[in-house]
Amino acid sequence: MNIAALYHRTESEYAYLYDENTVHIRLRTACDVKKVELMYGDTYQVDGVKWLKNAKKMEKVAETKEHYFWQFALSMPYRRLKYAFKITGNDGEEIFYGDRGAYPLEEKYYKVVNFYFALPYFHVVDMAKAPKWVKNTVWYQIFPERFNNGDTLNDPEGTLAWGSVDPTPHNFFGGDLQGVIDKLDYLQDLGINGLYFCPIFKAYSNHKYDTIDYLDIDPAFGTKEIFKTLVNEAHKRGMKIMLDAVFNHSGDTAPEWRDVVEKGEKSIYKDWYHIHSFPVTYKETSNFEYAENLTYDTFAFTPHMPKWNTANPKVIEHLLNIATYWIKEFDIDAWRLDVANEVDHHFWRKFYEACQAQKEDFYIVGEVWHNAQPWLQGGEFSGTMNYAYCENISQYFIAEEINEEQFSSALYNQLMLYRDQVNRMNLNMMDSHDTARILYQARENKELVKKILAFMFLQPGTPCIYYGTEFAMTGGPDPMNRACMVWNEEDQDLEMYDFVKQTIALRRENFALLSDGEIKFNYDLNNKIFIVERKFNNEKMIGIFNQSDQFFLSDIGINQFLTGEISNDGKIPANSFAIFKL
Amino acid sequence: MNIAALYHRTESEYAYLYDENTVHIRLRTACDVKKVELMYGDTYQVDGVKWLKNAKKMEKVAETKEHYFWQFALSMPYRRLKYAFKITGNDGEEIFYGDRGAYPLEEKYYKVVNFYFALPYFHVVDMAKAPKWVKNTVWYQIFPERFNNGDTLNDPEGTLAWGSVDPTPHNFFGGDLQGVIDKLDYLQDLGINGLYFCPIFKAYSNHKYDTIDYLDIDPAFGTKEIFKTLVNEAHKRGMKIMLDAVFNHSGDTAPEWRDVVEKGEKSIYKDWYHIHSFPVTYKETSNFEYAENLTYDTFAFTPHMPKWNTANPKVIEHLLNIATYWIKEFDIDAWRLDVANEVDHHFWRKFYEACQAQKEDFYIVGEVWHNAQPWLQGGEFSGTMNYAYCENISQYFIAEEINEEQFSSALYNQLMLYRDQVNRMNLNMMDSHDTARILYQARENKELVKKILAFMFLQPGTPCIYYGTEFAMTGGPDPMNRACMVWNEEDQDLEMYDFVKQTIALRRENFALLSDGEIKFNYDLNNKIFIVERKFNNEKMIGIFNQSDQFFLSDIGINQFLTGEISNDGKIPANSFAIFKL
Repeated sequence: MNIAALYHRTESEYAYLYDENTVHIRLRTACDVKKVELMYGDTYQVDGVKWLKNAKKMEKVAETKEHYFWQFALSMPYRRLKYAFKITGNDGEEIFYGDRGAYPLEEKYYKVVNFYFALPYFHVVDMAKAPKWVKNTVWYQIFPERFNNGDTLNDPEGTLAWGSVDPTPHNFFGGDLQGVIDKLDYLQDLGINGLYFCPIFKAYSNHKYDTIDYLDIDPAFGTKEIFKTLVNEAHKRGMKIMLDAVFNHSGDTAPEWRDVVEKGEKSIYKDWYHIHSFPVTYKETSNFEYAENLTYDTFAFTPHMPKWNTANPKVIEHLLNIATYWIKEFDIDAWRLDVANEVDHHFWRKFYEACQAQKEDFYIVGEVWHNAQPWLQGGEFSGTMNYAYCENISQYFIAEEINEEQFSSALYNQLMLYRDQVNRMNLNMMDSHDTARILYQARENKELVKKILAFMFLQPGTPCIYYGTEFAMTGGPDPMNRACMVWNEEDQDLEMYDFVKQTIALRRENFALLSDGEIKFNYDLNNKIFIVERKFNNEKMIGIFNQSDQFFLSDIGINQFLTGEISNDGKIPANSFAIFKL
Repeated sequence: MNIAALYHRTESEYAYLYDENTVHIRLRTACDVKKVELMYGDTYQVDGVKWLKNAKKMEKVAETKEHYFWQFALSMPYRRLKYAFKITGNDGEEIFYGDRGAYPLEEKYYKVVNFYFALPYFHVVDMAKAPKWVKNTVWYQIFPERFNNGDTLNDPEGTLAWGSVDPTPHNFFGGDLQGVIDKLDYLQDLGINGLYFCPIFKAYSNHKYDTIDYLDIDPAFGTKEIFKTLVNEAHKRGMKIMLDAVFNHSGDTAPEWRDVVEKGEKSIYKDWYHIHSFPVTYKETSNFEYAENLTYDTFAFTPHMPKWNTANPKVIEHLLNIATYWIKEFDIDAWRLDVANEVDHHFWRKFYEACQAQKEDFYIVGEVWHNAQPWLQGGEFSGTMNYAYCENISQYFIAEEINEEQFSSALYNQLMLYRDQVNRMNLNMMDSHDTARILYQARENKELVKKILAFMFLQPGTPCIYYGTEFAMTGGPDPMNRACMVWNEEDQDLEMYDFVKQTIALRRENFALLSDGEIKFNYDLNNKIFIVERKFNNEKMIGIFNQSDQFFLSDIGINQFLTGEISNDGKIPANSFAIFKL
């Protein structure tokens, strides 16, 4: 047996409180293991002999190129646990694996109390929590300057006619919050019940990531009163509101930074940033966003985004005041956190606690493009922007760089990075204001986009579509991905609209199954078929994705067909897909 | 190459801030790897081609039966890092290993930004801190009721003559704080510079773990004034003070619990504990410490130790008030936390912050008998009671259950569980009030005890001896390990005293080397020789431990001999040891 491949870690995604009373235990092994059993019991009644006799078979929940992952769910009357693994290799070798490593399955090892892993007490306060409403939410991301112009009176100087020219990093089209209010019925009809806004606070640029005042609405977007109306109207329709905040850095026009620039070492804000020497200077280059010889820390190399010192209690107070202000005064439901991975955990824990104190089921999503484990252990973010997961979807369906086996392996690897409840909180999106639009990525192939969206909506994470996807808007990377929403009916793709609406409905009608249900990937390498299976209690949904140029004959009754394409004799056409409910 | 055996985890003991400017990166591989190189650079200047060209060789710092561990230290000008590993197998295979797993070492993989692991920003506030003074501290654990009776006026009723009978769970001998003050010169002369006290707060039992009032000194031990004098006198002598606190549970005589017992659901303290139903009851058994049908959570199964609800803000306030009171008013330097593993992380983080706010270099040691990773990520404990490490020492030297190879493997495995700076904060002790005394464990073999103490003092953790070890006191498990200190000179083993004193001096004279220095284990299975090598800058210390019945011929010049036993021709006698400084 490949003992070197074993991995387990207590109080991590390998051993965690799933809900108030349930613990999940996971183990990683190589693919040469036949069976894993869990030996366990109360911390103060360790009895290896009995525990071995009563050992519980663990389920193989994921299978990657290199590993098997085994899982078991349990409860304990006294909320404490000692446990170890009995592992049986394909070669028949049996081992005991616990806190002190791997040993032969012999009494002299499995009788030793200290050889067991421990979850000393199940603390709900430390649990990674998963707000229930998120599981039933389909998000719609709005880039406010480009969604809808509802009030021309607040248009900034030089506003261009809606959609009259291509978007640039600097032009304005007058999109605003009134424009969103005017379209709430439209969004509700589409089935959306979560609105995720790019920044709406006072700032210079059209993207508003260079915040001037976190406590004010950008005047070109409207007023606080209008925002209040927007939240109320959304809530009336059962829609949640998520705002985007940048707590990593300020803009260089923020009053605190201006003070530092002017007064240098004498500024009362000098400890609010990470300044290495005064005066705060840099050497410009031909690239606006790249400076050299910076004497202070910034986001990337842009001198215009000085990094907050989030370890400074005054900065913490300042930023938490902002975080709670919008919850307290405007009743928002979620924060999406920009560049969240560059801010310290110490700050995020306080942030989480402050938000929770306002609203117990508050949702926090951090922008992390890589493995987000460090922030998803409970008490920081609810979930991450699930780029790493969704990139695999693009790689398989669009780039076709990976085959079915690699795709399955990659998805399972991502799922095994996080606790089950966290996977359900991750925000899945195929595109955003930071990427090219999905239709552009898919080389303008609308059928492929449908297949990809269908696939994404079958995953455990909470799905999010970027504004305009429902009308098949396209556009390359920034700034082309930020074009004005097509409200002109002639330019709207109604077939795509119908598909998106139907897919949203499917997700929401089956939200428990599609969020909390088990997930299993199967594939057929020869026929280029990838199958997603979801299971929850007695319900089952199966998605069959055909990546080949041949039809695929499904043996599931076509009475059980839900969406996609299938002929009466059960053939799923080339490059198509079909979803069934059993 | 055994790719399934690879393990790396960002923001853990595998990738961490070692000091304000230095990051340590570790990788686990199987033992079939020849070379590991680190490819790295700034997050916003990812250049796989250049990074591969400049890849840095990692050092193999630990070797266990199953794994090699590789490590590299680096700094980054902008305090952010992307990195991945180039791994070369013994078979010549080369792979690229990063955030998305293992791939062939090909440009199409190592050029992808998102395929790198990330440490997005080096946050000092999140770093696991290591108070400098601890590295130069040798601890002495005092069980106050049994160390010295300095004031007979405060003796509890029924106090027995000092050492007149064997200790029992219930008898008293009058030990107190004045007794400790009277012996400070003695302790200073021995070389001790850290006093670790078992509980001194008001309680019923002789061990005082059943706290009645955390804010008062037990009257049989003295008064607050006397404790203040003790701290001052200790500090004058350069000695630090560590108190033992039980924040997991109260005694059942605590006023809060009495109130719950009396008033049931109407008690204002009903949410201060974990109560499942009222009234709070249980069924007694023949065992005082084991009850059945408990309607509330306790420590183990003892009805007399109801568990605090440390998630309740009022309990948090109450306990933090205690934690800070003794720092603020009495200037203590450290807390040792009883049953620390059963209290939530949420509480410990607040505890850490509150203590730090009082004293920046405050030291916190948690009682954790198993892998203590969850509490040693920074911001909770400084270190753990290092039972798991020290048990291996007993297993090798006393039980002789493991051979040299297994011993080396077990020690390295323990060291690789923690960040380097944390290993230096772990409290190493061969015995305590919770175990049989080391001499008893060693079957009364004093030479073996010396060898074991010498071994322990060569390890990175901060060493602690249990009172009386210096006079070769013996005693089986509780209560026999809690006998009265032998102050009667005729009963004192002065040879052991001289050895302990010399070993303490050796540790303190070489504290930088023995705390911060690299550690390497070597062995000779045939000759039953185990070698510890420590290295720091140009200094080196080597301990050779001979477990065989034959002498061992050392080739280190005997001019470099420090302590232990060696003949003029370089022979280390059977069952002996020798320590050298190079």
